[in-house]
Amino acid sequence: MPGTNRQIRLARRPVGNVQPEDWEHVTEAVVPPGEGMFAGRTRLISLDPAMRGWLDDRPSYLPPVGIGEVMRAGSVIEVTASDHPGFRPGDHVVGSFGVQEHVVSDGRGALRIDPSLAPLATHLGALGMSGMTAYFGLLDVGAVKEGETVVISGAAGAVGTIAGQIAKAKGCRVIGIAGSAEKCALLTGELGFDAAIDYRTEDVRKALRTHAPDGIDVYFDNVGGEILDAALTRLAMHARVVVCGAISQYNNETPVQGPSNYLSLLVRRARMEGFVVFDYAPRFAEAAREIAGLIATGRIKLKEHVVKGTVDDFPETLQLLFRGENTGKLILDLT
Amino acid sequence: MPGTNRQIRLARRPVGNVQPEDWEHVTEAVVPPGEGMFAGRTRLISLDPAMRGWLDDRPSYLPPVGIGEVMRAGSVIEVTASDHPGFRPGDHVVGSFGVQEHVVSDGRGALRIDPSLAPLATHLGALGMSGMTAYFGLLDVGAVKEGETVVISGAAGAVGTIAGQIAKAKGCRVIGIAGSAEKCALLTGELGFDAAIDYRTEDVRKALRTHAPDGIDVYFDNVGGEILDAALTRLAMHARVVVCGAISQYNNETPVQGPSNYLSLLVRRARMEGFVVFDYAPRFAEAAREIAGLIATGRIKLKEHVVKGTVDDFPETLQLLFRGENTGKLILDLT
Repeated sequence: MPGTNRQIRLARRPVGNVQPEDWEHVTEAVVPPGEGMFAGRTRLISLDPAMRGWLDDRPSYLPPVGIGEVMRAGSVIEVTASDHPGFRPGDHVVGSFGVQEHVVSDGRGALRIDPSLAPLATHLGALGMSGMTAYFGLLDVGAVKEGETVVISGAAGAVGTIAGQIAKAKGCRVIGIAGSAEKCALLTGELGFDAAIDYRTEDVRKALRTHAPDGIDVYFDNVGGEILDAALTRLAMHARVVVCGAISQYNNETPVQGPSNYLSLLVRRARMEGFVVFDYAPRFAEAAREIAGLIATGRIKLKEHVVKGTVDDFPETLQLLFRGENTGKLILDLT
Repeated sequence: MPGTNRQIRLARRPVGNVQPEDWEHVTEAVVPPGEGMFAGRTRLISLDPAMRGWLDDRPSYLPPVGIGEVMRAGSVIEVTASDHPGFRPGDHVVGSFGVQEHVVSDGRGALRIDPSLAPLATHLGALGMSGMTAYFGLLDVGAVKEGETVVISGAAGAVGTIAGQIAKAKGCRVIGIAGSAEKCALLTGELGFDAAIDYRTEDVRKALRTHAPDGIDVYFDNVGGEILDAALTRLAMHARVVVCGAISQYNNETPVQGPSNYLSLLVRRARMEGFVVFDYAPRFAEAAREIAGLIATGRIKLKEHVVKGTVDDFPETLQLLFRGENTGKLILDLT
């Protein structure tokens, strides 16, 4: 076990785009696990759009990361030493362990995973929070039914790729919105979406009219802004708009752009509903089983964007999300 | 029966505030009822914020009123002649008969009412579409439960006064938002609201913090705009936002102001849902029975703002709604 633990801590609250100066790169001594605890070495770190929200000092579903605190992040660690009855050296564990090389945990919120069932990255992606978010957002909040038309923004991202493939598996017509021709080709080619719209080059409103002539039954929104507004103009009767995220708005220095077309909720007798995946924790095992089955039968194909590096690469890797340069689940691999 | 039928027709589509020139005042000959039809004389005309939306040429829950057509309006008529088996001379009937003195109808959408049960105006207000809107918006869309905190905007209007009193009858804590000290005094005094906020003189966000310290469970929105945004900042977990209307936005010449704080739907696991009262027509009798019971036991007090005049007074009377000068149900009484 090396003697030092490199960490990324929050130095100050970002305004707009996160700057390198917003982070502090720190080297601490590795701490041995105390009584009833275990220690581990970080293998993979999950990078998620939601991280941007955690940096702002305002009420949300989690408290903001404090100035000087290790940046919050989901990760996979390998246990190196343990005084905890539930975890043994060599175990692989997922949890919210932060952006650091070495971890000490009392086991709260930590979950042992079986690396023989799926690659480690998949435990952060399709079988991790991204997959859980897609599953419960689409099926519980969106309540999709066979034969419905589903539109997904941020469709080439970690959640979007899984949500779209689950919707296909449920017998829906699925249209993805993404930010490049390559991403769109991936969606309609490899991932089986029925149509894809490149929001950087196409008129989204017009394209939705073409691809969803009878309207959108479920709109799964990861982006907010103009694209949310375009989708609202095309809702079918009794449509459900799932508010999963709003990456287009996270770096705003001005107020969030509210959906100007929200009154279509009235005209179309539709609802817009938000959710936080952690609420579904008691049902994660159920969702993971179903997603694992879809992976096994080839109906979910995994898209994982793995960047090899060190924790010092975290700030730059995070930017890929906001520049739309990742495809699928973005992961920093420290091994 | 007089020989002429004065009508208000739509002359052109308004831009922003409706102008006198947007209407055409027409005198036609009275038409006798054809086979299977009945004729009637208009007694009372209902004036509603939704009318503004009907004047715009865009897709909505009803087709727009056509240029040159008699203005759409709910009204109470008294049958003067009939070849229809369901309606006899002397019957009072509510329906969408338009802004005109004399009506001929085939009976579609027409409903005989009993003037001995309630004054005619009440059949347009608490027992009419306003009451139905309050009832189904609050109970079905909002799904209010005893002990919850309910906030209602446009609280001194036709729908708001009924919605607030139904919520009180269901055991909720009820806060109304209205546009004058007099209206607020009415709400907390005569109508039994727990608190009222005068949006013209108070900071609505701060006032909601005071009056709803544990958050809003159901926000019944009649106004949109800044007030919707303020309410969104104060949602309780699993809150329901009922999109009933958005009178603050109806005369906009710019795009509707979308709710900038809509992401609180995510943080608070809340939903925002629209509805159109006509969908509940099969259950109107159920609602009317319950509302009549609440009126009979004094738990709903009626607020009706009756303007005596002729159909020529319709354009100016309609403006009272958009200037916030009515309290309760606005009615033009032709008798």
